[in-house]
Amino acid sequence: MLELDQHPSGRHFLQIPGPSPVPDRILRAMSLPTIDHRGPEFGELGLKVLGGIQKIFQTRHPVIIYPASGTGAWEAALSNTLSPGDAVLMFETGHFATLWKQMALRLGIQPEFLSLPASQSWRHGVQPKLIEERLRQDHEHRIKAVCVVHNETSTGVTSDIAAVRRAIDAADHPALLLVDTISGLASADYRHDEWGVDVSVSGSQKGLMLPPGISFNALSPKAIEASQRSTMPRGFWAWDEILAANANGYWPYTPSTNLLYGLNEALEMLLEEGLEQVFARHERWGEGVRRAVNAWGLEIQCQEPALYSPVLTGVVTPEGIDADEVRRTIYDRFDLSLGTGLGKAKGRMFRIGHLGDCNDLTLIATLGGCEAGLKLCGVELFGSGVQAALDFFAENPAPGTPAARKLATRESAGHSQAGAVRA
Amino acid sequence: MLELDQHPSGRHFLQIPGPSPVPDRILRAMSLPTIDHRGPEFGELGLKVLGGIQKIFQTRHPVIIYPASGTGAWEAALSNTLSPGDAVLMFETGHFATLWKQMALRLGIQPEFLSLPASQSWRHGVQPKLIEERLRQDHEHRIKAVCVVHNETSTGVTSDIAAVRRAIDAADHPALLLVDTISGLASADYRHDEWGVDVSVSGSQKGLMLPPGISFNALSPKAIEASQRSTMPRGFWAWDEILAANANGYWPYTPSTNLLYGLNEALEMLLEEGLEQVFARHERWGEGVRRAVNAWGLEIQCQEPALYSPVLTGVVTPEGIDADEVRRTIYDRFDLSLGTGLGKAKGRMFRIGHLGDCNDLTLIATLGGCEAGLKLCGVELFGSGVQAALDFFAENPAPGTPAARKLATRESAGHSQAGAVRA
Amino acid sequence: MLELDQHPSGRHFLQIPGPSPVPDRILRAMSLPTIDHRGPEFGELGLKVLGGIQKIFQTRHPVIIYPASGTGAWEAALSNTLSPGDAVLMFETGHFATLWKQMALRLGIQPEFLSLPASQSWRHGVQPKLIEERLRQDHEHRIKAVCVVHNETSTGVTSDIAAVRRAIDAADHPALLLVDTISGLASADYRHDEWGVDVSVSGSQKGLMLPPGISFNALSPKAIEASQRSTMPRGFWAWDEILAANANGYWPYTPSTNLLYGLNEALEMLLEEGLEQVFARHERWGEGVRRAVNAWGLEIQCQEPALYSPVLTGVVTPEGIDADEVRRTIYDRFDLSLGTGLGKAKGRMFRIGHLGDCNDLTLIATLGGCEAGLKLCGVELFGSGVQAALDFFAENPAPGTPAARKLATRESAGHSQAGAVRA
Amino acid sequence: MLELDQHPSGRHFLQIPGPSPVPDRILRAMSLPTIDHRGPEFGELGLKVLGGIQKIFQTRHPVIIYPASGTGAWEAALSNTLSPGDAVLMFETGHFATLWKQMALRLGIQPEFLSLPASQSWRHGVQPKLIEERLRQDHEHRIKAVCVVHNETSTGVTSDIAAVRRAIDAADHPALLLVDTISGLASADYRHDEWGVDVSVSGSQKGLMLPPGISFNALSPKAIEASQRSTMPRGFWAWDEILAANANGYWPYTPSTNLLYGLNEALEMLLEEGLEQVFARHERWGEGVRRAVNAWGLEIQCQEPALYSPVLTGVVTPEGIDADEVRRTIYDRFDLSLGTGLGKAKGRMFRIGHLGDCNDLTLIATLGGCEAGLKLCGVELFGSGVQAALDFFAENPAPGTPAARKLATRESAGHSQAGAVRA
Repeated sequence: MLELDQHPSGRHFLQIPGPSPVPDRILRAMSLPTIDHRGPEFGELGLKVLGGIQKIFQTRHPVIIYPASGTGAWEAALSNTLSPGDAVLMFETGHFATLWKQMALRLGIQPEFLSLPASQSWRHGVQPKLIEERLRQDHEHRIKAVCVVHNETSTGVTSDIAAVRRAIDAADHPALLLVDTISGLASADYRHDEWGVDVSVSGSQKGLMLPPGISFNALSPKAIEASQRSTMPRGFWAWDEILAANANGYWPYTPSTNLLYGLNEALEMLLEEGLEQVFARHERWGEGVRRAVNAWGLEIQCQEPALYSPVLTGVVTPEGIDADEVRRTIYDRFDLSLGTGLGKAKGRMFRIGHLGDCNDLTLIATLGGCEAGLKLCGVELFGSGVQAALDFFAENPAPGTPAARKLATRESAGHSQAGAVRA
Repeated sequence: MLELDQHPSGRHFLQIPGPSPVPDRILRAMSLPTIDHRGPEFGELGLKVLGGIQKIFQTRHPVIIYPASGTGAWEAALSNTLSPGDAVLMFETGHFATLWKQMALRLGIQPEFLSLPASQSWRHGVQPKLIEERLRQDHEHRIKAVCVVHNETSTGVTSDIAAVRRAIDAADHPALLLVDTISGLASADYRHDEWGVDVSVSGSQKGLMLPPGISFNALSPKAIEASQRSTMPRGFWAWDEILAANANGYWPYTPSTNLLYGLNEALEMLLEEGLEQVFARHERWGEGVRRAVNAWGLEIQCQEPALYSPVLTGVVTPEGIDADEVRRTIYDRFDLSLGTGLGKAKGRMFRIGHLGDCNDLTLIATLGGCEAGLKLCGVELFGSGVQAALDFFAENPAPGTPAARKLATRESAGHSQAGAVRA
Repeated sequence: MLELDQHPSGRHFLQIPGPSPVPDRILRAMSLPTIDHRGPEFGELGLKVLGGIQKIFQTRHPVIIYPASGTGAWEAALSNTLSPGDAVLMFETGHFATLWKQMALRLGIQPEFLSLPASQSWRHGVQPKLIEERLRQDHEHRIKAVCVVHNETSTGVTSDIAAVRRAIDAADHPALLLVDTISGLASADYRHDEWGVDVSVSGSQKGLMLPPGISFNALSPKAIEASQRSTMPRGFWAWDEILAANANGYWPYTPSTNLLYGLNEALEMLLEEGLEQVFARHERWGEGVRRAVNAWGLEIQCQEPALYSPVLTGVVTPEGIDADEVRRTIYDRFDLSLGTGLGKAKGRMFRIGHLGDCNDLTLIATLGGCEAGLKLCGVELFGSGVQAALDFFAENPAPGTPAARKLATRESAGHSQAGAVRA
Repeated sequence: MLELDQHPSGRHFLQIPGPSPVPDRILRAMSLPTIDHRGPEFGELGLKVLGGIQKIFQTRHPVIIYPASGTGAWEAALSNTLSPGDAVLMFETGHFATLWKQMALRLGIQPEFLSLPASQSWRHGVQPKLIEERLRQDHEHRIKAVCVVHNETSTGVTSDIAAVRRAIDAADHPALLLVDTISGLASADYRHDEWGVDVSVSGSQKGLMLPPGISFNALSPKAIEASQRSTMPRGFWAWDEILAANANGYWPYTPSTNLLYGLNEALEMLLEEGLEQVFARHERWGEGVRRAVNAWGLEIQCQEPALYSPVLTGVVTPEGIDADEVRRTIYDRFDLSLGTGLGKAKGRMFRIGHLGDCNDLTLIATLGGCEAGLKLCGVELFGSGVQAALDFFAENPAPGTPAARKLATRESAGHSQAGAVRA
């Protein structure tokens, strides 16, 4: 055990875009003794977390909780709704969209992968226009589903899911809408029902602040119907048996008991705080981090301000600077983990996670480590990012705090700064 | 969190055949902070647990660790080695053999299900003779795999896996041997290589004493070869990408970090103690529990003494007594969970788990609760099971303890009781 | 860390009369991060535990919480109320009464130590009659305090504190009444105000189910007044500064923060359960254990049934049997700790604790270990104590449980067994 | 329990000069089950921690571990060595020196309190010259002890203890040397034997990184001798019984078991790291923090650079700025606790702790919070302290890390920066 805990002094800073830092409160909940997954107490727990997770997805329809990590929930979404040979429309927002496409191929599905030209690729969100055009051409409705990523963990770009739904409807096309919100859920606003999503895929180790190990499929009635016709062989991922057992709070096979304890605690924390506040909190952190990147004079990977991710920020390193060398220096010198550039972005970008068990000073520490590490690697910075973030946090108190309320009152009297955070 | 921990006083006794009671040492290890699954520390952890788990399976070949519970590892074994339409030979040892067969059906595989006559069904192990006979008739080698359960969790009957291998070889048949040792591994002796198993399936929540959530496929070179020809669609369960990433201690997708901390700790505990000792410990507990059942004058579900499970004991309740009513009484009155009768055994049997974080007195407590509960439900017992078990434990010190060594010395001088434990 | 946790398998059974087994819920509470003992959160915590602990002592007057173990609270009671050279009247109920007397001597106080004749010594409670007689002779009121032990941890004999108060009043004597209820509080009924106690001394590691480390002085107005006249030099133990700081929930020096987290949790557990229920629970456990000792045909140290301790039972070993040898055997063979015979009782007695995080089956396990160990040491037992206790627990459901309520209803219709538990 | 853990998100920053942030590793060790303090395992633990703590005090003589917080160890040092009416010489280094003097008065000791003139008071260390002069005048040797504070927690000024010893010797005076190193031990270099200290007093909640609750007296043979003549009434604090029981690793009364688990872990962490490294680590942190204060243009309370505390830094707020208002703002806005100004320094100073479970980025976060809070309170800062500290940490890698070794090699080739840290 010891060797897992040998950092010289102080806590490691885990500022990757997931797994996110897990609150002690959740780690403590997870250390409760494992119980009988067929006993009466378990049924109560099961019903409670199944009810709570619906609120997080903003849905009245069932949510499946898998005792498996997020990639499994990707497979589940595809294998429950589609049949071998089915065509699906996907969009290349980044590395994870690409991996999901590869999984579709493995399952014998035929993905069509829409992309922007290389120069813009991975720096913008899904283009609803392109989706709509393509669906309009599909007169025979060979495309069975549109699959998109809500928050691209590899780039820090979100996509407008409601707009994708409108595009499908505008094309008057029956395709299902499957959305990966693995790293978006519980940090960025997400509305399964209102946005007309058929299957939403998510995982535990991001906004839910749990260790990895459980994952989710939020369903629509249309998705459930599709699952009754789908011929893809499936056992573990099959919704039918799980839905039946879930009615009483149980699972057809052994669920991941101690992670469900953690989920129960996470749901209490998030719902106590209120989703509005949770989203505003991440939004504000994201803005603080972007102010720092701007102050350094470095480029943010996402090129559409309206789609900046509240979960992570991709920082492009200058020509000639290996982003992974920067990360390694920061790790070695400051006990801080940052996200690596994935796939096409390898070596050109690092990613700062601003989610999970964080606060303003954790991010100041993180930006401090980045700033010092960039300099140590020879990057000439324009100005101090730490300073810029600190000023932003000081001037814009966290929403819901007394300081924020005081400021709000003062300002509603004069000119408003309400929109200032992102402007 | 509180409502998960509202037992009036004292610890709940979780004596089901899995999830088994988790040692505090493992719960503490699992509460270490989640780390970056792509960082340098993780690679070290990965290599360590991948190496350790091989020792537990007694294999030199790779073991896959899935971030998914045991049922997933069943699916993985089938979907990596077989193709839709393939025939497999399975044997009805009990409820879990039956569930595995149903999963095969769901995946489009054609299982042939050998059974004993109803009167003997679920009370004996796999019959190698029947396997051999059936395989001899399969001249065209349409049967691609023989799938058996090593330790039937629903009955407390083990099977002789080496004999099954000999049966396949005697029939000169190329079928793969797939074995479910979900509840046997790390409690009962299990030898993947020596017994010629091609895929061994296991889970975390039994002999490994972890909470549920991760599971295993131990492979043979022949199984890996088969996976290259298999056409079953698969993504999450596919061995190839995992084997490639495992070479450096990583996974192609997010592994279940905190359960791997627990696995690391469990491996240290088991390997420090030594597998021989671990097996002897469970063997002795099993004998103590059986002495109690015999003293009560009740029937043990397993009818072959050579195949008594060291992991659990199925206790048949007398005609007219609902075993689940007995379990409920015991749960309500003594805060003790026992295993229910599953499938065909529903209401006729309860199961006592003797695995995981137990010791002699835990089992005395368990047997005490059973004895009192049986009486409260109107079962007339022949004698005191608690007394019988206590006498057995007192006369047969735990192997490896000073008391056992002293006794051994004394007895090697005169007549030996070496075989007495099971005789 | 590892070497502290090297029991071969399963949990150690800690059945000594304190430190008692600590509930996991309390251990988890104690692992919360230490906070600033001068910060706003701390004040809230302080006020909460100071209020809660009053309910446990059943007092409206202040209770001092020391960041020191129980022996310190003994010294505090004496040094705050007395002056060097003062005479006090003490009663030899057992080893702890004797130690308290020795402490008085060390502090320059002159204790007079009342005892029963050797043949009865340590097997009875305080004799109010003798107290009254002695006080009547003290015409000059040289005796400043009567100091008695409520629950003698070394013998398992309680004393009737209300009767001691009546004795003092009957003698019309102004002596203070100082009571050690270190091992009685929160297990046995204790009423600081109603019984007219001036200083009640207690500790954390018994009925409060905490690790050792904090201790208590419950005060009366008369005791506070006495402290203003007392000339004993004192700093750390002085009530005045603590009382002043406690008004806002703080301490004049650094309190034992994490043990106060534990205390907060313990108070929630005990007050949720209700003191009545807590007392009944221990009473019932005590009776179960005594049934076992009687069944064995062994002697209980306490010779007055009305004074049987609900916290522990002293078991006298037969002539020629070294009680410590029995304890050692039980420890080595069954991973069970029992209390040793202290002082005069050394080697003649062992003590079974029935307090803290226990339940019926924990005690069955404990009695099982005792029974087997006694036999292994050559003690011939009359009958099975485990069986006797099990029958008692089965026939007398824990108070407050559904089974108990059902039984109560049934019996109130016919003849009552209400008094049966102790009769 | 919940209400103790309701910080909105992220960990609270506890940067007061003790209690210091406790490493998770220690909190986990403290959550091990409480054991029998008279059992065999306890004896092993006892001997281990008693041996380890000697290394921390750098002594071959016995160290007493009290189950009581630090103020108790002050009393113990006085009451074991002195008698009522004895004169002692103390030095007013700050608030804690003053409190110790008040305790001496309470115990009936006659302290003489040397001070510097008001203008310099609390900003310098003990003046050995003044001590020597005073002792030389004490021809009759009425002064029995010199009592000084090694690291004044209220000011951030250390004192040269070896020089105090030399002063006593120069005066050829037999007075004992009693030293409070409550907040110095295990952070600042401290040598009980080499510096000729007779009693060193310390506590758990500072450099040892434990929660408060245990405390220490390191003894000299001369101190033990003095204790045999001292007539101060004492029980709990008396060394004699503790020394006797400690010989086998036990205590005469119940020790603070779970805090001793924590101590055991802390000793392993500190001794693995090596005391040299531990001291260098704090020294470097202190320098980083002072660079920040200098960059802000604010005054450091300590006016002697050679005596800067490596444990904490006292920051003087400008005229007209209430330091407690600054602290409150920082606490409310940034979830960061700083030390208040105590006694004479109330409102004029805040204290930054740089000890315990910290690292460079924790301190950057802390300084960020301070900087923003100072600005919010209207303090005009000269420059950015965060930037200054960040530059310092980047240019001066932590001792013992690969980066530091690389730099050291490079520099030993040319001009050395060895002394640069403090210069």
